[in-house]
Amino acid sequence: MSADELRRARAYLLRVAEPPAPALVAFVAEHGPIDAAGRVRCGDCPPEVLKVTEARREYDLVSQDFARAAEAGARLVVPEDDEWPAWPLLALEQAARRGVAEAVPPLALWVSGEVTLGTAADRAVAVVGARAATEYGEHHAAEFAYGLAGRNVPVFSGAAYGIDGAAHRGALAADGVTVAVLGCAVDAGYPAGHVGLLNRIVRSGGAVVSEYPPGTPPARHRFLVRNRLIAALTEGTLVVEAGRRSGARNTASTAGALGKVVMALPGPVSSGMSVGCHQLIRDARATLVSTVDEVLETVGRFGIAEDPARPKRPTDRLGAEALRAYEALAVRADRSDAEIAAESGLPLRKVRALLPALEIDGFAVRGEAGWRRRKESA
Amino acid sequence: MSADELRRARAYLLRVAEPPAPALVAFVAEHGPIDAAGRVRCGDCPPEVLKVTEARREYDLVSQDFARAAEAGARLVVPEDDEWPAWPLLALEQAARRGVAEAVPPLALWVSGEVTLGTAADRAVAVVGARAATEYGEHHAAEFAYGLAGRNVPVFSGAAYGIDGAAHRGALAADGVTVAVLGCAVDAGYPAGHVGLLNRIVRSGGAVVSEYPPGTPPARHRFLVRNRLIAALTEGTLVVEAGRRSGARNTASTAGALGKVVMALPGPVSSGMSVGCHQLIRDARATLVSTVDEVLETVGRFGIAEDPARPKRPTDRLGAEALRAYEALAVRADRSDAEIAAESGLPLRKVRALLPALEIDGFAVRGEAGWRRRKESA
Repeated sequence: MSADELRRARAYLLRVAEPPAPALVAFVAEHGPIDAAGRVRCGDCPPEVLKVTEARREYDLVSQDFARAAEAGARLVVPEDDEWPAWPLLALEQAARRGVAEAVPPLALWVSGEVTLGTAADRAVAVVGARAATEYGEHHAAEFAYGLAGRNVPVFSGAAYGIDGAAHRGALAADGVTVAVLGCAVDAGYPAGHVGLLNRIVRSGGAVVSEYPPGTPPARHRFLVRNRLIAALTEGTLVVEAGRRSGARNTASTAGALGKVVMALPGPVSSGMSVGCHQLIRDARATLVSTVDEVLETVGRFGIAEDPARPKRPTDRLGAEALRAYEALAVRADRSDAEIAAESGLPLRKVRALLPALEIDGFAVRGEAGWRRRKESA
Repeated sequence: MSADELRRARAYLLRVAEPPAPALVAFVAEHGPIDAAGRVRCGDCPPEVLKVTEARREYDLVSQDFARAAEAGARLVVPEDDEWPAWPLLALEQAARRGVAEAVPPLALWVSGEVTLGTAADRAVAVVGARAATEYGEHHAAEFAYGLAGRNVPVFSGAAYGIDGAAHRGALAADGVTVAVLGCAVDAGYPAGHVGLLNRIVRSGGAVVSEYPPGTPPARHRFLVRNRLIAALTEGTLVVEAGRRSGARNTASTAGALGKVVMALPGPVSSGMSVGCHQLIRDARATLVSTVDEVLETVGRFGIAEDPARPKRPTDRLGAEALRAYEALAVRADRSDAEIAAESGLPLRKVRALLPALEIDGFAVRGEAGWRRRKESA
């Protein structure tokens, strides 16, 4: 199968049924995307797949989708790609096996922006909250995002007004990586007041992500479906402000169902916008966090948080292979990935996976002719 | 032994060693207060008891203590009294058996005020917090105390400036029962700015309580020792505001060690006075509460909180004997305790114990000639 054919098949499948489409996802897993797309197109599929694909199965919009995506600077990232966030999304498959209804993996993702999606998602935190946020909430959303992004933790959010927007802006202010996951197409221009923000996110090395084909308008149910992706693509979700029935609580409960870390910011008990956070904490569905260090400590595995058990040298927290790759880097000269593989004795593919992670962790920098050790890390 | 002799022995024992004096308490438990006091007086006791009593064992200030107490309107409540808060203090004995160092029961308590101490303590909540409280903290301390006292939950606190004072004032505003437990004598006039408040507490049917003999001045270590009594005398402790190293956190940790409920109020993360509360919640040492209903729900056994499992009739939550006593009450005429005993078939002593509890729960009112059923309770 050609890479192009595969990508076209997945683009077709993304449009043929409204996500999440568990029956279709299972059908694709069974037959592979190309075969599955062919069968769906001619109606040769089980009744439950036919049911969700019938309305759109004869649409032939794949070429148009790619053309519109290219115009919007977006590409299709598919599970067969190296940058596919397989590890974080594994939680969806595991939760689906435990019977969590909303845990349906995406069939592919439209991505605008140059970030390597899988690398960003491997160590990201979602910062989410109410649209009708207070000054208190927006202030702290921006502060937490700033602090996280400043420590090389990508900040994911939903680009909505209120907390989401403040989180993206905070991460941008720290020159960090931030990713907006949308409940509409990446080219839908929504929310209208955040088009400039979305462009800035893309230009600053972040990404705008959606499983909806180009042109898909926003819809209430799409935000809920999108929320599972925010939860799935991150290590943990921080709810900054949420009313009694906020969508952010939906993201939090999905994150919990996926086995991800759920955190909430406390606030004044007199604030209606902190009620949802307080309920999550009170019911032990979220851990209270009041500082960036506590977020890092709660999410755990970064090992970046200041705590008494913190290792003496920064490199102490690297895994064995990452340390070997790190030690193969030079401080004053760029080395190619092949040179680093030869020097470290690690497979080239492994080196290519480790280098961006070392970069995010602040151990390596990318230069003109390859990679070098970051001075401050030694 | 005469009641007077017993009371004098306990007054002597309260003064002869600085509380908490675990060796002395054990010695009294073994020999009884009169015998123990006699032996301590002539130095006929084990070395560990001698050590803590040596400095003061020859003092003969018992008559003076009673005279000064009478002058201050205080009485000595001893474990042999019916009103001794035996049930809540049981937690101290149990914790001592589990090896909790600070869990030393008081040998007696000086009490100013007409409240039946045991009845008040059986269903009380402590509302405590920092002296250097913020407006936010004082406001909510008063609001929670008002709400609790208004639902017949006595509010215990430490009479300090800041949160404690606001809690007492809130309970007074609701015409409720509030009890101040001091780290100095009940007649020490401390804190100076709260002498008026302490007088109001006593006059309004509450109490001022201390294990320190009349004339004992306040001292830092006495506040810590006192904190264990606040924790022990209540069902649960609510920390309203606490800095990183607040005494209120000490009360909370003692309450936790005693197996009592520990609650904390969240606040703005930017407030240094909420840091202690947030840490308690984050470490799962306290349950977050943001409303009076949540306090009642957390403390649990009152059955006053609005929840789906709430019984249909108020009397559904009365125990069998309490219900018999309640049913022996008339709505339009006072009945004496003897009449109620005859009517209900319960022992007089039991009736006398049940009536004040029924009053606190809002089922009975005390009239000129005895007790009657409270109309709203029927």
